[in-house]
Amino acid sequence: MLDVAAKPTKTIPFDTQLLDRLLAEAGIDALIVTSKHNIQYLFGGYRFFFFDYMDAIGVSRYLPILVYHRGKPEDASYIGYRMEAFEKELGRFWTPQVQTTTSTSMDAARLAVEHIKRLGKGVRRIGVEVSFMPSDAAAVLQDGLQGYQFVDAQFPLERLRAKKTPHELKLLRDSSEHVVAAMLDTFRACRPGMTKNEIVETLRRNEVNRGLTFEYCLITAGTSQNRAPSDQRLKQGDILSLDSGGNYHGYIGDLCRMGILGEPDSELEDLLAFIEEVQQQARKPIKPGTLGGEIFEVAEAIVEKSPHTAYVEFLAHGMGLVSHEAPRLTTTGPVPYSAYDADRPLETGMVVSIETTMKHPKRGFIKLEDTVAVTDHGYEGYGDKGRGWNPIG
Amino acid sequence: MLDVAAKPTKTIPFDTQLLDRLLAEAGIDALIVTSKHNIQYLFGGYRFFFFDYMDAIGVSRYLPILVYHRGKPEDASYIGYRMEAFEKELGRFWTPQVQTTTSTSMDAARLAVEHIKRLGKGVRRIGVEVSFMPSDAAAVLQDGLQGYQFVDAQFPLERLRAKKTPHELKLLRDSSEHVVAAMLDTFRACRPGMTKNEIVETLRRNEVNRGLTFEYCLITAGTSQNRAPSDQRLKQGDILSLDSGGNYHGYIGDLCRMGILGEPDSELEDLLAFIEEVQQQARKPIKPGTLGGEIFEVAEAIVEKSPHTAYVEFLAHGMGLVSHEAPRLTTTGPVPYSAYDADRPLETGMVVSIETTMKHPKRGFIKLEDTVAVTDHGYEGYGDKGRGWNPIG
Repeated sequence: MLDVAAKPTKTIPFDTQLLDRLLAEAGIDALIVTSKHNIQYLFGGYRFFFFDYMDAIGVSRYLPILVYHRGKPEDASYIGYRMEAFEKELGRFWTPQVQTTTSTSMDAARLAVEHIKRLGKGVRRIGVEVSFMPSDAAAVLQDGLQGYQFVDAQFPLERLRAKKTPHELKLLRDSSEHVVAAMLDTFRACRPGMTKNEIVETLRRNEVNRGLTFEYCLITAGTSQNRAPSDQRLKQGDILSLDSGGNYHGYIGDLCRMGILGEPDSELEDLLAFIEEVQQQARKPIKPGTLGGEIFEVAEAIVEKSPHTAYVEFLAHGMGLVSHEAPRLTTTGPVPYSAYDADRPLETGMVVSIETTMKHPKRGFIKLEDTVAVTDHGYEGYGDKGRGWNPIG
Repeated sequence: MLDVAAKPTKTIPFDTQLLDRLLAEAGIDALIVTSKHNIQYLFGGYRFFFFDYMDAIGVSRYLPILVYHRGKPEDASYIGYRMEAFEKELGRFWTPQVQTTTSTSMDAARLAVEHIKRLGKGVRRIGVEVSFMPSDAAAVLQDGLQGYQFVDAQFPLERLRAKKTPHELKLLRDSSEHVVAAMLDTFRACRPGMTKNEIVETLRRNEVNRGLTFEYCLITAGTSQNRAPSDQRLKQGDILSLDSGGNYHGYIGDLCRMGILGEPDSELEDLLAFIEEVQQQARKPIKPGTLGGEIFEVAEAIVEKSPHTAYVEFLAHGMGLVSHEAPRLTTTGPVPYSAYDADRPLETGMVVSIETTMKHPKRGFIKLEDTVAVTDHGYEGYGDKGRGWNPIG
């Protein structure tokens, strides 16, 4: 049916059988993938360098599109921005058809319409990423594909990414270790009188100089609970929390470490030791087969019988190319299926971020966040250094 | 009509009279602004740090919304992500109403619907950013605001940003100078055998260590015309083009400079001198009142009577928070009004990127790109250093 004779000549960098099964379960015949993170996943790490940071260009925006026909990767087509011709020349795309001719999101959508129509009458239900499909492109699809049904493909695409490959795990380990090392360098470089903005800028450069793409830093100093960078100045005796995300070839390291300008008193030592205890106990049940919800049960039991229960929050969430992704372990949340993984077994290759946050009414904001991978027989912590009160300066 | 008694207490950081006039011309009663760049402009440089780089979070995405009622800034409302409560506490938002409670794009759209309904019956035509409105949020708006008409607000918002303030001009000057300085450092650091990937990584760190946010680098080496970073290695005698965008507090520096590993021969000297001549002549007519198209006329006349016409392209475009924005000077392009500014006078404070690109069939890719601001009596080049063959190593 498709005017492409050749089978894919390059290795497809993801598990097509898993994707096909997930799409079948969701009743999706073909996908129109438009988010940077899913394009990156489905092309084995590819992210068009020109639009790594920005989206806007001219009167429109960058909109990469992969059209994927369930069960028929030989029908797949990549629709790219005109400057992606350079990447096509370098052989970055496994799809048999590659068009790098678009300037606007509507251009891209028009080519997607043409391609979907070529897939034949078996294709009726189209999966799209509703949060990552611009409204102008959506209008082109709806107009050009009347009689087709559009459904959200967020869920199957996220499930596809949930178990990381050894290569992905290496990137997540490297990313986590680099983030923590950059934090420890930053604690050493801080001085009384520095602002939170200056501290974040120091951390940003430390992350970049280790090869990371800096994404953000949540930061508190002293007894304030405000986590935004600002002109607040660091004072002698202040505690400092750095909770930063940076990515290494797309994979996010997201950890939190504590520093102090001076010596911690025994109360501060005890408070951080309590958080560390929650963090360590929470990871202990992690192994293939453990239900996701057990992580919460263990942690919440410790918090609930402690004197800190009123101001301590525990959270665990999957992470990878997106900072909160599958496995979804919380039992509440903004979405109907947020509880999905609480009752499902963890699997080897899943990666979980575990965070215990204390908003202490007198001593300030104290938190540890760790990254823990599910291994064949248990778990492995990534970037586990610097868990105590790191001296500042 | 609106349940907000107070007038805005903080200074509104843009020209509300100009915005109101542009909206009236476009027949827009109220705006729903959703792009990071327009949110940044309308809040005087604000960009929520947590989503500076990323958009995806959980099962949805970041979607900031400013609702603006034409002629009534006292009715404006900002709808932010739940963690923007930290920014609200720091007084970042001038709007009388600020809600920082959303987790998903649909949450944000629902609050926008409620706010639009409170604006009264005079509001019928709503301006939205169609390329920066996710389809799930658009569906919430269409469902919740039946009887309202939605039109694209890209044009009035872009016109609003066209003339830069002295503060914006300073940021653009700083940004351009930092990008060029980072390039010159990079040329000095290059060595034979380095890959284009390694050179771009060096430039990235040089930009970040000067305080910029690195956005991208287009790069060629030797006689190749391929501008993507890759494992191509730099060889003795190679020419090298670095065309990079980095932003300083959001404002983009976008320039191109040339390097050479060895000594340029007389032909290379002549070719770059030709490009420099086009660049210098093209900026000469720039002053308030010059029609935008004159820049092209001057440049194209030089190119057309040269022996290089077959492989030289000239381009000029506005720039600022977006790398191609108003003034729009080209007479062809992907959009109906791309020719708009060719027949309109330039104004003080507009900023133009001017680029002459030579795809020489034997010698390779040779280009200069400059940033030129329209001043009261003429023009000023930003980041004008390093225009010749910069020695590598």
